[in-house]
Amino acid sequence: MKRSMWFLDQKDMPVNWYNIQVDLPEPLPPVLHPGTGKPIGPEDLAPLFPMELIKQEVSTERWIEIPEEIQEIYLTWRPTVLHRAYKLEKALDTPARIYYKYEGTSQAGSHKLNTAVAQAYYNKKEGIKRIATETGAGQWGSALAMGCSFFDVECKVYMVRISHDQKPYRRILMETWGAKCVPSPSPDTNAGREMLKKWPDCPGSLGLAISEAVEDAISRDDTHYSLGSVLNHVLLHQTIIGEETIKQMEMADAYPDIIVGCVGGGSNFGGMILPWMRDKISGKKPDLQIISVEPESCPKMTRGKYAYDFGDVAGMTPLLKMHTLGHTFIPPAIHAGGLRYHGMAPIVSHLNRLGLIEARAVHQTGVFDAAFAFARSEGVISAPETSHAIKVAIDEALKCKESGEAKTILLAHSGHGHFDLTSYSKYLSGEITDYSYPEEEVRKAMEEIPDVASE
Amino acid sequence: MKRSMWFLDQKDMPVNWYNIQVDLPEPLPPVLHPGTGKPIGPEDLAPLFPMELIKQEVSTERWIEIPEEIQEIYLTWRPTVLHRAYKLEKALDTPARIYYKYEGTSQAGSHKLNTAVAQAYYNKKEGIKRIATETGAGQWGSALAMGCSFFDVECKVYMVRISHDQKPYRRILMETWGAKCVPSPSPDTNAGREMLKKWPDCPGSLGLAISEAVEDAISRDDTHYSLGSVLNHVLLHQTIIGEETIKQMEMADAYPDIIVGCVGGGSNFGGMILPWMRDKISGKKPDLQIISVEPESCPKMTRGKYAYDFGDVAGMTPLLKMHTLGHTFIPPAIHAGGLRYHGMAPIVSHLNRLGLIEARAVHQTGVFDAAFAFARSEGVISAPETSHAIKVAIDEALKCKESGEAKTILLAHSGHGHFDLTSYSKYLSGEITDYSYPEEEVRKAMEEIPDVASE
Repeated sequence: MKRSMWFLDQKDMPVNWYNIQVDLPEPLPPVLHPGTGKPIGPEDLAPLFPMELIKQEVSTERWIEIPEEIQEIYLTWRPTVLHRAYKLEKALDTPARIYYKYEGTSQAGSHKLNTAVAQAYYNKKEGIKRIATETGAGQWGSALAMGCSFFDVECKVYMVRISHDQKPYRRILMETWGAKCVPSPSPDTNAGREMLKKWPDCPGSLGLAISEAVEDAISRDDTHYSLGSVLNHVLLHQTIIGEETIKQMEMADAYPDIIVGCVGGGSNFGGMILPWMRDKISGKKPDLQIISVEPESCPKMTRGKYAYDFGDVAGMTPLLKMHTLGHTFIPPAIHAGGLRYHGMAPIVSHLNRLGLIEARAVHQTGVFDAAFAFARSEGVISAPETSHAIKVAIDEALKCKESGEAKTILLAHSGHGHFDLTSYSKYLSGEITDYSYPEEEVRKAMEEIPDVASE
Repeated sequence: MKRSMWFLDQKDMPVNWYNIQVDLPEPLPPVLHPGTGKPIGPEDLAPLFPMELIKQEVSTERWIEIPEEIQEIYLTWRPTVLHRAYKLEKALDTPARIYYKYEGTSQAGSHKLNTAVAQAYYNKKEGIKRIATETGAGQWGSALAMGCSFFDVECKVYMVRISHDQKPYRRILMETWGAKCVPSPSPDTNAGREMLKKWPDCPGSLGLAISEAVEDAISRDDTHYSLGSVLNHVLLHQTIIGEETIKQMEMADAYPDIIVGCVGGGSNFGGMILPWMRDKISGKKPDLQIISVEPESCPKMTRGKYAYDFGDVAGMTPLLKMHTLGHTFIPPAIHAGGLRYHGMAPIVSHLNRLGLIEARAVHQTGVFDAAFAFARSEGVISAPETSHAIKVAIDEALKCKESGEAKTILLAHSGHGHFDLTSYSKYLSGEITDYSYPEEEVRKAMEEIPDVASE
């Protein structure tokens, strides 16, 4: 019988996160203060984040030990399983070997729990009683709700309205774990109220929900802010995915030729690829192909500027050097709510700039075709976000079919789509359509990118 | 770091199902023909089931080899994980040790896939093109939809209407895997049409949906019927759960004092307990406590008759000796749709009769209290059916707290509740209520139990 799953024993779960900053061929550009245009210091971030996370943001240690309290919770669902997608390979009739690392077995259903638990822990340790955050598709909000429930921290989630309406189960999930969830724009903040005045039916965006959550955190002493992607410490926490996968691919006696992941803010993608990047940077595997996949309708990596920009619509965050479509850009209401973000993690942007990864953009209908091909072969119902990566994994497998090459494709499968079935239903009834690249909206938003010289 | 999950390597997955019939202290009463009152022969069942399954129904082999084609599909999600519920233990402040075997990671979300794959396989092998079935909560229907999609067999599902309306995502799931799903009572069969005439708003019941599916299968040459529980071959396929768990408890260096599982038709419960029953029957562990849990509103094990009765409302099936509330009984519309069945697997009924297991009935509000306690400690969102077992596991753990005993409790966790969040939402808004034992309805239904002498 062919083995199709590789379990990693719990005693072999990695006990360190990997900090790629130490191994980058060129250092990351600094984060700038929006007022002064100068690099920010730890104290500038202290109203938002606990000091431990701020230190991780700029750490010069290669390995950061995972605290025991976090390991203990990781062990309720980790290590996650590495699968070989034999049935998909057969359905595609490809010589390619497709592996997928599946984060959907976390209680919250995605990779997001890896950092949610860590962030809740460090906040609790610093005496914080309440955390405010935003969520797109709801994966992050429900993960943080659960993370906070483990450490008895209150949680308030601003959920992008279009997703809030598309995915009612996500809200119930957050409430089950004790969090409070409101649709964004909400009447609870200035940023929300202003938007509602201008555009009462605004579908919301991650950038706007971030403004609301940041404002909430700044305005209350007992409250911190928490971000589910983009920042260095978030990608750091996600590296446990890649570290586990390295061990599991070894168990499977395989090494990837291609690694594929979807990108919203870049944390799932980063979590998988950063550990593998060591081999690419060190020259051990220079031709390892690493592909990020984003929606055609929100194509920051393929069409965005590499520039200093805000993380949120209202311009409240520090300035990050990243691929961006402009912080005021509100992406079309695609079903992959988690990918509706104007910017990209500085680390991922930097790697792209250095030519270490390549970026692709795909259309929504192709994404759902891929989701159904996966569901009908492997059985797994994937999140629409993840299905972006599935689409490109299938594309690459089909190229192998043409060329006859038996490439090894590793897919970062970020989570299940059990709460996205409304979208699946729309696909079945032919209601999923493509959105073309919103050229005019992006052009306008690009003009709002602040004029900051890169040193 | 304390280990909290035990993976069983794929090479150690059991390759045989266990047939308890060989080891029963007394043989099972025969299945009777409803017309003649005599034991049925294989040919009587041939219009409904493939011959291989009919043979398994009365097999005298202790071990039945799992065909390679089925093993291969099992390996896409099996072996499933055994968990230690440390966080729940801590929340309850109990000295008890709680383990749970989690079937929720199957692509269809529950244990049902174990037999769905097997049934689809044997039907396909016999040249059957189409399978009709019923489903309560939708766990079975979606599992069979997926099983059929693996073997390219058409699938038609009659879904109990109350569940169909409560759980729209389940229908989408079935359609995603290519099945057709209609609410039952439906206008597609005589049994459905008759009920709709008498009671247009009928919420449906498993017994009625079975009538529809059986009628569908009988009326078409290319179609067989498939049942997701109750029958011997279904419990047989589920024994892989218990066989895996025995190996995993050994890995954990533990042995259960108490095993708990919920019962609808008895397949999840049977799948877990039958392999353990060997130790109890052989005298190796005579005091092993095995508890079945059912709803107060549908209490066949605790209040039903042990008698020959039909499996369906319309009286189309052979007569099974079992605990029954009467085949015409329509249970109240509790949220655990999978437990709304009037009868109980003959094997489980027989074991109860022999005093080898004990039965408990619990109320719905307590069940949801338990579901929330589990979700807020372990993080896992459980199906309302499963939560019946969680309720009793918690009760037993709390008894240990009082007595100071450190008993080992093994919970059969049959599946996740990702498609049951409407019920969770109702709990949060205080809308979950208890149904008292429907004494009058049961009394009436009991009168309809056919008058058949036991042998």
